[in-house]
Formats: sequence, C-alpha cells, structure tokens
Amino acid sequence: MKIRSFRPKNKNIVPVGNYSQPQNPGPVNSTIPARPQGVVSPLPKPTGKAVRLVSLGGVGNVTKNMYVYEYEDDIIIIDCGVSFPEEGMLGVDLVIPDISYLRDKKSKIRGIIVSHGHEDHIGALPYLWQELDVPIYSQKLTCGLIRAKFTEHKLPKDKIHVLNINDHIKLGAFDISFYRVAHSIPDATGVVIDTPIGTLIHQSDFKMDWTPVNGQVTDIAKVAEVSKKGVLFMTVDSLRVERAGFNPSEKPIQQTFERIEKKSQGKILITMTSSNLTRVQQVINVAVESGRKLALVGRSVESTFQVAQDLGYINVPPGLVIAQEEIRRFPDKKMIILIAGSQGQPESALSRVANHAHKYIQLKALDCVVVSADPIPLSMNAQLAMIDNFAKQNIEVYWSVVEPNLHVGGHATKEEIMMMLNLVKPKYVLPIGGSFRHMWAFARMVEELGYDKNQVVLPQDGQVIEISQSGVRMVGHIDLYNVYVDGLSVGDVGSVVLRDRQTMAEEGIVIVLLPINQQTGKIIGAPEIISRGFVFEKSSEDLLDAALEIVKSCLTEQSESGPHDSRYLRHQIEENLDKFFYQEMKRRPMIITIVQDL
Amino acid sequence: MKIRSFRPKNKNIVPVGNYSQPQNPGPVNSTIPARPQGVVSPLPKPTGKAVRLVSLGGVGNVTKNMYVYEYEDDIIIIDCGVSFPEEGMLGVDLVIPDISYLRDKKSKIRGIIVSHGHEDHIGALPYLWQELDVPIYSQKLTCGLIRAKFTEHKLPKDKIHVLNINDHIKLGAFDISFYRVAHSIPDATGVVIDTPIGTLIHQSDFKMDWTPVNGQVTDIAKVAEVSKKGVLFMTVDSLRVERAGFNPSEKPIQQTFERIEKKSQGKILITMTSSNLTRVQQVINVAVESGRKLALVGRSVESTFQVAQDLGYINVPPGLVIAQEEIRRFPDKKMIILIAGSQGQPESALSRVANHAHKYIQLKALDCVVVSADPIPLSMNAQLAMIDNFAKQNIEVYWSVVEPNLHVGGHATKEEIMMMLNLVKPKYVLPIGGSFRHMWAFARMVEELGYDKNQVVLPQDGQVIEISQSGVRMVGHIDLYNVYVDGLSVGDVGSVVLRDRQTMAEEGIVIVLLPINQQTGKIIGAPEIISRGFVFEKSSEDLLDAALEIVKSCLTEQSESGPHDSRYLRHQIEENLDKFFYQEMKRRPMIITIVQDL
Repeated sequence: MKIRSFRPKNKNIVPVGNYSQPQNPGPVNSTIPARPQGVVSPLPKPTGKAVRLVSLGGVGNVTKNMYVYEYEDDIIIIDCGVSFPEEGMLGVDLVIPDISYLRDKKSKIRGIIVSHGHEDHIGALPYLWQELDVPIYSQKLTCGLIRAKFTEHKLPKDKIHVLNINDHIKLGAFDISFYRVAHSIPDATGVVIDTPIGTLIHQSDFKMDWTPVNGQVTDIAKVAEVSKKGVLFMTVDSLRVERAGFNPSEKPIQQTFERIEKKSQGKILITMTSSNLTRVQQVINVAVESGRKLALVGRSVESTFQVAQDLGYINVPPGLVIAQEEIRRFPDKKMIILIAGSQGQPESALSRVANHAHKYIQLKALDCVVVSADPIPLSMNAQLAMIDNFAKQNIEVYWSVVEPNLHVGGHATKEEIMMMLNLVKPKYVLPIGGSFRHMWAFARMVEELGYDKNQVVLPQDGQVIEISQSGVRMVGHIDLYNVYVDGLSVGDVGSVVLRDRQTMAEEGIVIVLLPINQQTGKIIGAPEIISRGFVFEKSSEDLLDAALEIVKSCLTEQSESGPHDSRYLRHQIEENLDKFFYQEMKRRPMIITIVQDL
Repeated sequence: MKIRSFRPKNKNIVPVGNYSQPQNPGPVNSTIPARPQGVVSPLPKPTGKAVRLVSLGGVGNVTKNMYVYEYEDDIIIIDCGVSFPEEGMLGVDLVIPDISYLRDKKSKIRGIIVSHGHEDHIGALPYLWQELDVPIYSQKLTCGLIRAKFTEHKLPKDKIHVLNINDHIKLGAFDISFYRVAHSIPDATGVVIDTPIGTLIHQSDFKMDWTPVNGQVTDIAKVAEVSKKGVLFMTVDSLRVERAGFNPSEKPIQQTFERIEKKSQGKILITMTSSNLTRVQQVINVAVESGRKLALVGRSVESTFQVAQDLGYINVPPGLVIAQEEIRRFPDKKMIILIAGSQGQPESALSRVANHAHKYIQLKALDCVVVSADPIPLSMNAQLAMIDNFAKQNIEVYWSVVEPNLHVGGHATKEEIMMMLNLVKPKYVLPIGGSFRHMWAFARMVEELGYDKNQVVLPQDGQVIEISQSGVRMVGHIDLYNVYVDGLSVGDVGSVVLRDRQTMAEEGIVIVLLPINQQTGKIIGAPEIISRGFVFEKSSEDLLDAALEIVKSCLTEQSESGPHDSRYLRHQIEENLDKFFYQEMKRRPMIITIVQDL
C-alpha cells in the first residue's frame, strides 16, 4: 500500500507585506537546499586598488545589519544582527543574514567588529559565528551581551575580545579604530577603517545627546580629528532622517518617573527596552530615592540587568532588588517592577500581567503601568492592544501620547545627521539602517548640504559596491535570501513552507481521502473529507456533503471512462473542489487529495 | 471502512492580538450554532420610565458601530457598520455586529438611522438588513452609498428613505431630528432623539472645520438651539480625544496638490479614502486648472465617484474624466490618476502599480505618487511597505512625514470635543467610537470640564445601559460574539476555525496515516506522514523519518499490549510526536492522525 499526496499548483497566493522584495521571492523549485543559499554570480576582479563593500543584511532593511569590507585577500565584517519577522512570515521567530557570499572566502575573514550591543547588530552571532569561527571585537558591554548569548547557545567564548575605545587593531590590510557615540545603549561606537585606499568610516546607529545620563557623549572632537585625514567614504545611520530638528536628551525622563512615583499609591510597573541601561539606572535612582524595592521580571530584563551589573554599567545598591516571588511580601506602594514586554509582545511578562496570567503579579486599582518605549511600526497594534487592555481594567497607563517625556529615540534626526556629515565631510556617503524611503530622504538631505548626486550611494538589495580613490561604483549583484529561524532550526523553513502556511492561515485545509485499488481503478470504499481551519464542520455539513458529492461524481466519471490515471483524478477532484468552494464561499483552502492506493 | 480524525486538545495556543476580549474568547464547545449567537441573559424590566441603550458593535471598538435605543415597545437602531479583521483573525474579510439581542424583538424595531456613509457605519447593512427588514433613514449621500451596496448585493432598495437635514421623523416613542456636522465625508449628522424621558443626542463621528471645502460646517447654532431644551444624555466621538488642540482645515490641501502638480513633469497618482468627496473635488479642481485629464482607478474610487457625481456632490466638467484604458493615449504630464489603495492594501490598484502588475499603469522616472491619507494603526506596515517600494524604484512619493499638508483627520480633537460638550451640556455622556484607552482619556477630560465621575458612562463590552431622569445605570450584560465574514459566508468561521488557522499559520500541519484493521487491531500496511507548512520535506527527511519511527514504535507497543483502543492509540501518537517535534525544533504543528479503519 502506498499513499501519495498532491498539491494544486495554481493557488494564486499573494504574499502579504512582502513588497520590498518583488523580484526576490525566494526559491520555489524542488532543488532548494536545506538552508537557502544566495546565488553568487561571479563578480569582476577589482580594477586597481579598491575596497569592496557587500551588505549581507540587505540594504534597505532597518535591521539585520551585516557588512562585509573586502580588500584583496582580507575581509572584515561589521555587525551580525537579526531582523524580526514581517507580516506573512508566519511562525518565523527571527530572520538572519544570508552568508552564502562568505562560504568560499572563510580563510580571508580577519574578524567581526561589532558596533554596539543591540539585537539587530549582535543577534545573529549565535547562529552564524560557529561557521565563520573568527575573532569578535567590541567594547566591554557589547562583548558582555555577546558572551551571555554564547553561554546560552553553549558556544566557546575565547574568541570574543574586549577593546577599549582608544584601542587600534590591525586586521590584515585594515587598521581599525573607534570613537564613542551616544545611542540608546551604552558603549556604542563609530568604526574608523584605515585602508590602503584611504580612510572609511562605518557609522552605524548614533545620536547626539549633550547631556546623556552616563556621560557617553558622541565624541565629536575625535571625529573632527579623524576627519582631518580626509575621509573617502562613510556609512551613516539614516533611520530618522525624515524627522527634522534634534532629539531631546534622555535626562528629563527621570523627572517623569519621579512625578509618576509621587502620584502613585500602588505598584509601579515600568517597561522599556531592557538594554537602555541609562534609563534602567534612572529607574534604580527613583526606586532608591522613594524607598521602593525593585523587582526584575521577564527574561530579557533579568539577563541584561545581570550583565550590566556584573560589568559595572549600572549602580545597584545592595538590598534594592528583590526576587519576583517576594513581590507579594511588600506593600504595593513600596514596589517598582521593571518588566519585559514594552512592545506588547504576546509572550512577554507584561502581556501575561495584562491578561491575568502572571504567577507573581496581579494588578489592583491603584497600580499603574509606565510604557517608556515608542512602538516600532511592526508591533504598534500589539502595544496599543496592551494599553487598551490595561485601560479596560481601569489601570492607569502612562505612555507617550498622554505623557510626552517618557521616551526619546536613539537615532540621529535630520539636523544631527547633517552635523555629523559637516564634521566628517566624507567624499562619498551610503545611508544605512533605514528602508528605501529613508535612503531616498537621505539623498535629498545631502543634496541640500551641497553634495552631488553621484556622491550618495543608493544600492539596491544585494548590489556590490566598490570604493576607490576614483569613485564608488556598483560592480555586481548577489542574490540574498531571507534565512528564517523557526524554533531551534535555521533555514529549513523556506518560501514554499511559508506559502503553505499563508494559504492555510487564510483559508484552512481540506483533506480528501480516496480508497482506491489502483490496479483495477475501482473505488473500494466511500471517500471522505476532513477539514481544518476552513469552516466549522458541524455547522457546514451541507457544504461538505455537496463537496463529497463532487468527489464522488469525479470518481464515477473516471471509473466509467476506462483507463485510470490517479494523478489526473486527483487533479480533477482538486480543480472541481477549488472551483466549488470559490463559487460557494469565495475561499480557496489548501486541498490535499490522499489516494489510498491499496 | 470508516475514517476518523482526532485533534489533540492541549495545544496551548495563545491568541495573537486579541487582548481586548480576554473574557470573551468565543464559543469553543461542540454546541456552536451555524452563526455564533450572543447569549442574552434575561435583563430586568426597566424600572419606571427609561431608555435602554445596547451597543451591539461592542463598546471599546473604534469601528463596527451599531447602537440600539429601546423604550417600552419601540426600538430604533443607529448605524450598522463593519470592522476590519485584527491580527489573528486569519483569512477573515470583515467583522459585523452580533444582532442576537434583536432576534426576538424584530417586531419592535421602527427603523435604522444612519449617521453618515463610512463603512464602519453602513458596511454591515448588506449582511444584516435583510433579517431585520425595517426602513433605513439617512441623508442623500449616505442613502446613495447604501443603495449602491444594496444593488451589488441584489437587495431591494424601497425601504431606504432620504431625509433632509431639517426633517423630523416619528419612530414610535422616538422623535428624531438631525443637525449637520463636519467630517471627512459629506452629509454627516448628529442625531437628536426626543423621548418621553427627555432629549438624547447620538453624536457619532464629527469635527469642527470653519472653512470646510463644501461649506458643511458643524451647525453649532442648531446644536445650541437643541441644548436649550436640556439634553439628558449624549454619546460623543472619542477617537481623537488624546490629541490636544484643533484640527487644521481641509482647505489648504488643495494648495499642496497644486504645488506638487506644478513641480511634476510626469503622471501624478493621488490616493486617498475615496469617500472624502471634498478632497476628491480638490483633485478635480487641480486637474481642471492645470489642464490635466483625470482617470479613476480601483473599484472603490470608481463606484464612490459615480454615486457622488450622480447625486451632485462633486462638480465634474465634461471631458475631464477618461477611462483607464486611455491613460496611455495622453502624455504623462497631462494625467492625474485618482487611485484606490491609500492604506497599501495588497489587493488594491495602487499595490498592483507598485508591484508592476497593473494592466494600464506603469510608472516612469518623472511620475509621482501622492498619499493623502495617514495610516490607520492596523495597516501602518502595509502603507510604509508600499511607500518603500516606490522609493526603491526612485519614484517620488509625497506623504505626511515629508509633506505635512497632505491630510487632516476627520475626528474632533480634545478642544473640539470640549467645545461640543460646552455647547450641549448633556447631563450624562458616553464616549463612543474609541477603544478603552480613548474612553478613559475622555473621562479624564470631562472631569476637567467639571463633570462628576458618575456623569460619564464607561461600560464594558456588552453592558446594557438604562437612561432615566434619575440617572444612568448598568442594568445587565449580553455576550457579544464577533461575527466573521469570510468570502461570501457570514458566521461559519468561528473561534475554533480561527484557532486552527492560527496553529497551521504558525507551525503547519502534520498528517499521520495509519492503516489498521480495527477488528484485529493489526497494522496492515506502513504508516505514512505528510506535512504542509511545517518543514521543507525534501530537506527534512531525517526528521520525518525519525517521526515515522516514533509512530511505528507506538503501533508496536500497542499491538503487543493486547486489547486495542484506536482512540488511545491516536492520542499516544499525537502526544509523542508533539513532544518529539517540540524537543527537536521547538515547534508544535497541528497533528492529525487518520486511522484508516479497514
């Protein structure tokens, strides 16, 4: 006995929310390898002396940062981050860069330099580092966060090297140094790359804040010093280029926390991005001043806090922090709870609290929730839904619409970017860290600064750039695929699997069972239909009965018309059912016909 | 031969984005009727003379407006709108109100009054009107839009009655009159309901605009006249209560269009909500002034334009509008195209243009796209993705971040709401049209105005309100279910179906086929595993082979252990596979075991 299945091809599935890659829908044929690989067309040899720059994260992405700088036989990599699944990437946990381009060049890679410790810059290291197996260089906090990840993934940590901000490292043809920048995490840097063809700067996320809480000001004096040498090429964080003016400072946020604390007679739950350690310090300060205890709730909050405390990035008086099991032992008005889930993530601790499902935290009338994080577009609905849920329970929620001084952004706005460009005066600029509309707005902005159109580099996905004294040119193209992490597996979920999920998500599945003797072509039992996620079976018996009649009439037709082809039969059944369901309900479930070949 | 299927119960599925109804997850047991019905607990008889108010759309929803006012044996309904599917409502097209509460009261319903012509106020009429079969009353444009819907759904139109703004109608105990309000669609109204217990006002969406393009100012003189009588109770649009200040006028938007037109040497594509007819008129004006032709592209744009032109709501000079097939016959700089898809909806005309899939429109370097609509939270990602896609193609896109005077909102902001309340001075107020956080912010605002806490009504979902001279009280509760429209069917997709879709969307499906003779309990062939949306089968053969081994060992164990219970066997197999997949991959696909009972 053999059982076969068949899936109709012509399902006309429109991918949702995947506009940004219309020409790169991923592999669809049957030769897909376990891990989808980018197709690397042979690139021309560099003409003269040139640095090749390949963005593996994909230019035009806000996240998943990974940049390859290549000069003759030396390669350095800057950052190795994740991005988060977009709509349509059903069930995917993370998206990581496609490193196919590097697979035949591993011996040339001298190291990975990490600009700062955010997930979209370090998050893919646990998945990709083992294959590359090269030294990692970064500042103390960033290395601490990477070490924590490596511990969790049971990876060796001996190739993670901590640098001071004034250290120089020589990696093959590249001479690397750093300068401090302000950002929403401590120890963020700009990377200066001295090469045989001139000085390049890789400026990832930064902002200007003249009164940062931890004193880590963007070191414009050092930037000015570098720029004296003449900078040939610079990448610049473009995410907030559309926003005019300067960011306000992080400093006044503590006053907002203090004001809320004074008003509140109950527990105060504060949520934020856990790596924003200066803001965590502000919470600590308020707890100390007000004589409240501090509990840490949620995995990301606990682990980042631990790393930061161990490395001295936050100052925590002894006895301040209590375990979450102890929260009930203290009066509500003596508690501040720093809790994970600022974006309303359904699996987060704060979501569990909002849905009365947290083991240690129940909210009461006088408690309040402080959301010290603006929503990112992808999670806006989740954050709003969570705020609504608290409001429905009459829990006071402070968030940026009703309380303006609760959050400031981490990325340079237009005037800050212009200031940086005026300081460095690079000959060529490449906007990074933004999507295409940001790159486009960036291009307009540098034109205002007097740059020529050809001094702004605006590559498409996978375009390879060559930087030389004589200019910057696009020299070729590599195909980059999304590599999906779903659960523990990397790369086994490809676009076929995602498309199936999409169909089943939109319309459900209908399984047709055909008991047939293939030798005789005879039906040897009644066919059956099973559905999931299509219609509620009990209340749609008529519909499913009618569908069964269609199956039966296909079988009758077939058995009457002589020689039997079960492939054609399946096709007939699926086509007829597809038509029937569409006519009756305007739906197109996935239909699987299983021929029980007895 | 009989085939049975079995679905494991304990899947631990967390609903996504459905925070707002934690206590109302919808029916899950096997007694669900074809159309999920709200459970109507018997409500107490009104005490003395009182008007009962039931919101069927669900208070705390921005959309799906439907309000039932009841006095003794008379019922009137205000509005009958749809809402749009949230995350987690996979494959659902629309959500409509649950009218179970009305089913035993149909003879009492005197009519449906419609405040204005937006989808969230009229969109459910084609699905629900036939069952209620009562007269519909509204202004000319609103009736025109309802008639167009009824034509499409092949419904009779003889019960749609056009009223003038100064008409009075007597519906049982209710004496209904209207006043004009400004909104983002013409012919929006406030509804004055004179009842035996006093005057009520149902104020749905409105704003203040002293220089509206069509002269339809909110008629504050008439409102003041009504308020002289003393208003007992008023509902008020609360959606924009968090925003301080006044809305700017719609008028300057035309100047923005003109400025863009002067700069543009190519085709200009303008997209907006098609029912914003005064803005459509502004586009017409710019086309006329500049000597460009106007093409209408997309179903919603074409049909709304037609209704508006037929009824005289827009002034269209002859020869201005050309068919989309003719676009290519005119020079690019002689074309303005009004096109549907301002929210980036994947199935819209503008999305097709962005993805090079439109039959008549291809964009070239000098063309531009004008997005004259702010994103709504649910569709923000889609709109941004579309803008990005144009930017990637080097098409100039104007939208509110880069061009501020391209859109103004349609809802009263805080100061406008306060003005309305000062004018009417209702004794009791109920914030509507917002979610719980808006209702909550509204309550704070009216406290600033000097209202007592007990003068603001803040019901939860399904709470029934009774309004009398002596006060407003909650008198009971009805369970409201989401009624889903998927394709042509209403109500056959319930929460079980959606949960199945969710599981399949996140993790895919694994089908296990067991050829067993139930009489003997013997396996009479090899079991098989089929999966969809789980892993890519060709590259995960090892995993699926290992899973098959687990199935076989369950079978062996069973057949060795004597008496056979196929229900228990299925359970064993599913539990073991579930554990295996979770251990190996941290995934939990839906598992269906099909026992081929031969």
